[in-house]
Amino acid sequence: MVEIRYDVTGIGNAIVDVLAHASEEFLVEHALNKGAMTLIDAEQAEQLYAAMGAGTESSGGSAANTLAGVAGLGARGCFIGKVRDDQLGGIFAHDIHAIGVDFHSEPATSGPPTARCLIMVTPDAARTMNTYLGACIELGPEDVDEELIAASAYTYLEGYLWDPPHAKEAFIKAMGAARAAGRKVALTLSDGFCVDRHRAEFLDLVEHHVDILFANEDEIISLYQVADFDDALQHVRGHCEIAALTRSEKGSLIVAGDEVHLIDAEPVAQVIDTTGAGDLYAAGFLTGLAQGRGLHDCGRMGGIAAAEVISHMGARPEVDLKELMAQRLG
Amino acid sequence: MVEIRYDVTGIGNAIVDVLAHASEEFLVEHALNKGAMTLIDAEQAEQLYAAMGAGTESSGGSAANTLAGVAGLGARGCFIGKVRDDQLGGIFAHDIHAIGVDFHSEPATSGPPTARCLIMVTPDAARTMNTYLGACIELGPEDVDEELIAASAYTYLEGYLWDPPHAKEAFIKAMGAARAAGRKVALTLSDGFCVDRHRAEFLDLVEHHVDILFANEDEIISLYQVADFDDALQHVRGHCEIAALTRSEKGSLIVAGDEVHLIDAEPVAQVIDTTGAGDLYAAGFLTGLAQGRGLHDCGRMGGIAAAEVISHMGARPEVDLKELMAQRLG
Repeated sequence: MVEIRYDVTGIGNAIVDVLAHASEEFLVEHALNKGAMTLIDAEQAEQLYAAMGAGTESSGGSAANTLAGVAGLGARGCFIGKVRDDQLGGIFAHDIHAIGVDFHSEPATSGPPTARCLIMVTPDAARTMNTYLGACIELGPEDVDEELIAASAYTYLEGYLWDPPHAKEAFIKAMGAARAAGRKVALTLSDGFCVDRHRAEFLDLVEHHVDILFANEDEIISLYQVADFDDALQHVRGHCEIAALTRSEKGSLIVAGDEVHLIDAEPVAQVIDTTGAGDLYAAGFLTGLAQGRGLHDCGRMGGIAAAEVISHMGARPEVDLKELMAQRLG
Repeated sequence: MVEIRYDVTGIGNAIVDVLAHASEEFLVEHALNKGAMTLIDAEQAEQLYAAMGAGTESSGGSAANTLAGVAGLGARGCFIGKVRDDQLGGIFAHDIHAIGVDFHSEPATSGPPTARCLIMVTPDAARTMNTYLGACIELGPEDVDEELIAASAYTYLEGYLWDPPHAKEAFIKAMGAARAAGRKVALTLSDGFCVDRHRAEFLDLVEHHVDILFANEDEIISLYQVADFDDALQHVRGHCEIAALTRSEKGSLIVAGDEVHLIDAEPVAQVIDTTGAGDLYAAGFLTGLAQGRGLHDCGRMGGIAAAEVISHMGARPEVDLKELMAQRLG
């Protein structure tokens, strides 16, 4: 059996975020879908960028943010994703290396530029994301090293990977390699609209292929097309080993067979920008699992990491997460 | 006589900042000159970037930050500076346009990439800057439109322009055009080490060519090679129309002929990052002058704008400066 070298390996879209404050009127004027992740093409990206305010660039991407959190918590992380060999790609690679995540994916040498996500943060701290996938469309099964996946305790996949054309093949190859090696597969549903686009496949994944499911209230309701959270809960229970369901300021609910844990949200002095909340919840939770902790503690670790990231602009932690966790978790 | 179209036109290095938190040990280990702006070449930039932590990118450049402040305060601003036609150059152009500054300088289509400044922010909020000038070395007199300068009430120049090879020619051409049109010329000394590099020329400028001088304590002491601030004050007095001398938490001193104003520093709840403090002081001060205000109010406007920018990471304002000024200035 292959020795474990990584606690968590993530596969996801490699994206540079462009964050700007925006008014509610701006969202309306540009017909942006508040709170959601909307895919845009190169031309739409150019138009929206021209219209939006001065921005701040920082590395993003849902699974990449999670891996940044995993490494920040002291666990061993690896990320697989596709950038181009351009300046933004260099920034992405620098930042993920700098935080201590292994990242070996070869950048594309031709084709579209590194992906970017134009994020409008409204005064209520909600983030509205508009993603130009760029070089992410080049990610394919050839980017997945099965030996590396077999050496990872948890393989973490973002639902957004269903959007680019070949990434799902990478996703399926990685799932297969993880299962064959007796490792665990975790999936986040990513976004309610993303679930809408790929519901049948996501239902099959949750039913047959995924050990640990992350979803927020919108996403799990969308997956089962039910009326409310409790109804969704009845559907998901027993259908994957662990489901960690996040509910923003209402905390999270973890169901695993007969076990149920209700975790209150961590206090946050002021919510500044919710970008990355779900990503960091997954980081805390998976690190807890990798450390052999119980589900209650895993849920708290998720909540603590999420609370940190929503207390400032940007989707990656700004404090020493290990120290924060030691303080808060005791 | 040409009609005034701009309150302030700035000429400076067009730079994208890469900001990261760093420890004091990191500065020592990499022999960085704390608190100063040090020029680095492409290779040094690559090495330092590889060693530094995950960063946040945002448009910077001293005079460009000042113009961002001028526009944020509701005055009409224009910026002249050189980027390349690359992704970072696109970010610089987008951001300065987005904040309402006119920026027509053609990007270079060959040669080095857009300039970047690797900024380490230590826990004491001090910023240590390491600048790779990149495309800034392409700035020359051909980038200065004399008609545009003649249409600008104030032409604002950064001392850093003395570092790239041809920018000083742009600087001199702009000064000449401004003086010929009866407009005012303002200069910031930029940095104590920059003054060291170009002292004789800066002394000549202050004596014969500049109407409004901005300098902090280090810079004015370095300019006159004297022992203390008061000594420097005796030297500068009477040698240019207005000297606005900033002293961090000690506020600022403004001398103009027989007029002397001592302005206390504005209160700041927590100093997070001093990047941009001098730039925003100049923005407030010049906007005050353009609005026909007295020197006391100009100094206060400088202090209020500086206090805002040091209360967060990054060198450009994050709040509505017009509103802030109305609240604080009354």
